[in-house]
Amino acid sequence: MIRFFENDPYAPIQYTYEVSNVLYHKRSKFQDIMVFENPFFGKILVLDGVVQITEKDELFYHEMLTHVVMSSHPEPKKVIVIGGGDGGTVREVLKYKSVEKVYFIEIDEDVINVSRKFFPRVACGVTDTRVEIQCMDGAEFVKSRIADIDLVIVDSTDIIGFAKSLFTKKFFRSVKNCLTPNGMYVSLSESLHFHKDMVIAVQETLQSVFPIVDLYTAPIATYAGNWWTFSVGSKQLDPRDIRTRQKIKCRYYSKEIHNSAFLPRPLYRRLMARKLDW
Amino acid sequence: MIRFFENDPYAPIQYTYEVSNVLYHKRSKFQDIMVFENPFFGKILVLDGVVQITEKDELFYHEMLTHVVMSSHPEPKKVIVIGGGDGGTVREVLKYKSVEKVYFIEIDEDVINVSRKFFPRVACGVTDTRVEIQCMDGAEFVKSRIADIDLVIVDSTDIIGFAKSLFTKKFFRSVKNCLTPNGMYVSLSESLHFHKDMVIAVQETLQSVFPIVDLYTAPIATYAGNWWTFSVGSKQLDPRDIRTRQKIKCRYYSKEIHNSAFLPRPLYRRLMARKLDW
Repeated sequence: MIRFFENDPYAPIQYTYEVSNVLYHKRSKFQDIMVFENPFFGKILVLDGVVQITEKDELFYHEMLTHVVMSSHPEPKKVIVIGGGDGGTVREVLKYKSVEKVYFIEIDEDVINVSRKFFPRVACGVTDTRVEIQCMDGAEFVKSRIADIDLVIVDSTDIIGFAKSLFTKKFFRSVKNCLTPNGMYVSLSESLHFHKDMVIAVQETLQSVFPIVDLYTAPIATYAGNWWTFSVGSKQLDPRDIRTRQKIKCRYYSKEIHNSAFLPRPLYRRLMARKLDW
Repeated sequence: MIRFFENDPYAPIQYTYEVSNVLYHKRSKFQDIMVFENPFFGKILVLDGVVQITEKDELFYHEMLTHVVMSSHPEPKKVIVIGGGDGGTVREVLKYKSVEKVYFIEIDEDVINVSRKFFPRVACGVTDTRVEIQCMDGAEFVKSRIADIDLVIVDSTDIIGFAKSLFTKKFFRSVKNCLTPNGMYVSLSESLHFHKDMVIAVQETLQSVFPIVDLYTAPIATYAGNWWTFSVGSKQLDPRDIRTRQKIKCRYYSKEIHNSAFLPRPLYRRLMARKLDW
């Protein structure tokens, strides 16, 4: 049996997947890209040795990254998606009829092309006429915008390597500047089980820029530590409240999931005070 | 570097842990027992090649297995704990002052002794005067009881091997017979990510015996599939409601966690109708 050993130096458990078939394996200008098949998860996309999405469970990550802020905004029209070259986040954003424009900013064009070829159910939205693809650094793109963006969704690789620039105070300031008064920002922020320090660091950096900052989680089996966090920065709207009137069809996300996903405030306070004894 | 490769034939991801030190490794009458140290998780207890608890994260499993039903019961006095030889569940049960008697029924005495030696923070309650240890088959013990038990908590190994007998209709009937009118039963029921069919099977078998059956989850990094489920069978009380007036100190569980842990009803209905498309 051929096996894929995940290569995540920040994970205290190493994950191993059975490989039925390697469909693609090449180095792009930015990273090592691999697609393989697994009997349980279907096709799996791997960047620099770390699993990014699997056909079976990508819905949990993409729905939870996207719909919390999308549903909390009364009527998102212009959205920036940074990273997420597989197209899953763009697919979810396009479910809202109010959306007029999605700026899809992925630094690595090869990830988009590989995903369109091997993950058509995930990448199905990237050719939508409302989507403008720009293959460039997300931090650079955001700098150039004026305040006309409703939501910025960062769907990057882990907070190591070249994605690091998307988690700095400088970047968060640029994001804030490009947002409308109701604007919100969301990104992954690693695992509460494995990377509490990183979660706290992202929250604190956001707090130095945004007046409202919050944290919610989702269970994702294929991301190390699985108790995956998402960090929100907001200019004035509380992301815990649902404001959308649009009906969207999801496989996991719902208003009940929205309500239960945010960390209870006492637990959140203990986390940020570094008083969790685990 | 020495590594421990988990041997769980039902997990589509294999987990690997770094081993700093093997502290114990022997076969008991029932199973292979190992204790090793890991730089992140501390000591880890392994039975038949599958991780049971780690010092770092055992609290999530033990608190969530125990406190949902304990807090939902108005005043639990007599509790049966089946399995859980490490003592973690007994420790949590003893936090309630109303508890007069804990029948601690673990088939394998060696697990209790190994845990007392290597996991004193977990096994600390097993010598409490309210605890009666009986090393026997939990199914046999339950059969002999009259209806004087408030809660039955099954803290077994996975629903394979010799723990299978604790998930049959016959066993659930014995459990129901030994419960008071306010009585409840809870057990682990595997992962929503990896073992949906097992989760449904446990729920359906419970439904054939108990009038009220429900399902809640907790994120546990060291159990395969991590989105771990717990199944409740109840004679008349809704386990979603908190009734206790006792103040207990927990590291993760809280009334907010209780409320958000149960599967939202629409999602639960889709699960049981086998209409979840993941």
